[in-house]
Amino acid sequence: MALVTLTTDFGTSDPFVGIMKGVIASRAPDARVIDLTHGIPPQDVRAGALVLRHAVPYFPSGTIHVAVVDPGVGGARRPLCVETATAILVGPDNGLLALAALASGVRRIVHLTESRFFLPTPSATFHGRDVFAPVAAALATGTALAALGGEVPSMEQLDLPEAVRDGTRLRGEVIYVDHFGNLVTNVSLAALAGFPRGDLSITIAGRRLRGVAESYSMARRGDPVAVLNSWGLLEVAVRDGSAQASLGAGVGTALEIDDA
Amino acid sequence: MALVTLTTDFGTSDPFVGIMKGVIASRAPDARVIDLTHGIPPQDVRAGALVLRHAVPYFPSGTIHVAVVDPGVGGARRPLCVETATAILVGPDNGLLALAALASGVRRIVHLTESRFFLPTPSATFHGRDVFAPVAAALATGTALAALGGEVPSMEQLDLPEAVRDGTRLRGEVIYVDHFGNLVTNVSLAALAGFPRGDLSITIAGRRLRGVAESYSMARRGDPVAVLNSWGLLEVAVRDGSAQASLGAGVGTALEIDDA
Amino acid sequence: MALVTLTTDFGTSDPFVGIMKGVIASRAPDARVIDLTHGIPPQDVRAGALVLRHAVPYFPSGTIHVAVVDPGVGGARRPLCVETATAILVGPDNGLLALAALASGVRRIVHLTESRFFLPTPSATFHGRDVFAPVAAALATGTALAALGGEVPSMEQLDLPEAVRDGTRLRGEVIYVDHFGNLVTNVSLAALAGFPRGDLSITIAGRRLRGVAESYSMARRGDPVAVLNSWGLLEVAVRDGSAQASLGAGVGTALEIDDA
Repeated sequence: MALVTLTTDFGTSDPFVGIMKGVIASRAPDARVIDLTHGIPPQDVRAGALVLRHAVPYFPSGTIHVAVVDPGVGGARRPLCVETATAILVGPDNGLLALAALASGVRRIVHLTESRFFLPTPSATFHGRDVFAPVAAALATGTALAALGGEVPSMEQLDLPEAVRDGTRLRGEVIYVDHFGNLVTNVSLAALAGFPRGDLSITIAGRRLRGVAESYSMARRGDPVAVLNSWGLLEVAVRDGSAQASLGAGVGTALEIDDA
Repeated sequence: MALVTLTTDFGTSDPFVGIMKGVIASRAPDARVIDLTHGIPPQDVRAGALVLRHAVPYFPSGTIHVAVVDPGVGGARRPLCVETATAILVGPDNGLLALAALASGVRRIVHLTESRFFLPTPSATFHGRDVFAPVAAALATGTALAALGGEVPSMEQLDLPEAVRDGTRLRGEVIYVDHFGNLVTNVSLAALAGFPRGDLSITIAGRRLRGVAESYSMARRGDPVAVLNSWGLLEVAVRDGSAQASLGAGVGTALEIDDA
Repeated sequence: MALVTLTTDFGTSDPFVGIMKGVIASRAPDARVIDLTHGIPPQDVRAGALVLRHAVPYFPSGTIHVAVVDPGVGGARRPLCVETATAILVGPDNGLLALAALASGVRRIVHLTESRFFLPTPSATFHGRDVFAPVAAALATGTALAALGGEVPSMEQLDLPEAVRDGTRLRGEVIYVDHFGNLVTNVSLAALAGFPRGDLSITIAGRRLRGVAESYSMARRGDPVAVLNSWGLLEVAVRDGSAQASLGAGVGTALEIDDA
């Protein structure tokens, strides 16, 4: 029984996601569909790529992950299917699939050109319905990747800013803000090597935090706290509150880490 | 294995939708449930009717579509089940089912009066849980439509404004705004017959657009663009932005189409 | 085939809920998962407890209900599994499970200590993924409750304000506001015994309502109306509007009920 996940910026107030599921149910009645999220900010390819990157590892091997954040729909960007060591990724070639593909090891990239697997006369505005959902259904019912189009050597990558070492200082930035207002940074556990975890100093949005706490619960209500989050990244949170609101920070806000 | 879809204005912050699924799972354990959307604006029967109209065609024949946008719950409005050529529609008789029913061809309209299929002692405030979900479960487990109540000759229709020809001019209006802020109008592909598609002029909210583009991607970032959308309707969008916000337009905003 | 429900304050804009479903799909491929809601206000344990309390009775006996509203994640609060007469509840020991447990009759409370059922090296920030989802998967695949940890005699309760009788007057308050802006109070049908239902007087936020109506549809558009809602509680609504907005009321707003 095939498993398909969906990640889009479609929101859930329109029937767009439901329509994709209708297409899949029509063509692959036994496939199961799980929503990763449809709350990617409109056209925010980077947020979609991060979400996919950190969710794919928790799904069974062979899961078909369909992602549609697609400002170039109907234009020249290619529809792709990427086979990795553990997953099948389906979506537009605009960087959306890049982080998940890289993390799980690319085996094959196929340009989806075989339109007999699409809905008849696809629209130029809704490839989620007309191209990606039916391709997912084809894969879910056992269609070989090779039947869907020709192999291509490469795909669009994603420019994700990296934390940089500057003498004894590490400079990073916020790359994602979650529903709680937690500020997820590009500072990984590996980048923190050499810093004394309990005793470093983090400067962000004019605030100075000391040390990386074991959990949110180490902070007092309303206080900011830095933790290593569930994605393995340094995150600044406010206990029982929103760091985004309290600190006036967001995607792109810089942070500096120093020995205390 | 029966397929049931749900369309409501219940939102997803309360457990109302989950409760409906619990009722269906209790009475029809094998039925699969797909959400169309629960983000219909509260009491907006027209938005619900449009969503249902444009989603039903993408589902397998025989799918049971339950829709609950029901400001008159507990009052005199009738609970209905409508059999069409390709679908079963279940919901209140307030116009919500009308567009989907019309588009797929009404075969039978049944007034749901057989309360033995409802939950015991139904509330007067939540027929989604007490009437419509259990009726869907009954249908999903093979109950004949005729067992659910008597046939009635007609149902409430929905007054949807139509685009009108006025000499060489076509006057329409915005009938739906989606999550992206795209302005969906009541101007269909058929209504545009006779206009030169690449060269007509569209006036909306004091702005003038020229031509219908093949896709959003034909416009520059931040520019408005008219396309034929995935529902076969003329839509005004802003590339990588919100036409609703940029143009200050919404449901009811007029547009005029002229030869350029 | 096991049924699992999820109730969280995670929202749906991040992949957190999808990741929990990935973990369940990986470890219990046949389990079905239903969302109750992920829109519990962040850290609002009471709202989560109310939602769970009023949803559990509509699910099949033996359903596994996972709830995660968990400001103390990573701290000292215990992860629990509660077996009741009709359900299995899984979540943090902070009162979240208390109302549902009480209403359906506690049989056994188990402290989840057997970490071999968790994901390897659980994070201190996301026990939904690392502890509660895998425990739900273990239960869904037939693991005995006793294998998950030792029995404990009690769990955290929830302080929910009760309506109090004061002479001939009943004093209550709003305990939950739903998506429509309906004000759900702590005044139950039982508490109203002795009041003439059609003729009592309700004072809330400076407004006086007369009587409890049979349904919302008894009121005129825009008028406030009191009904007994689908949870068996007195609720103040505004027909085709939001009582929260119209009355400027919310959780904690007092109401008084008198003989008219």
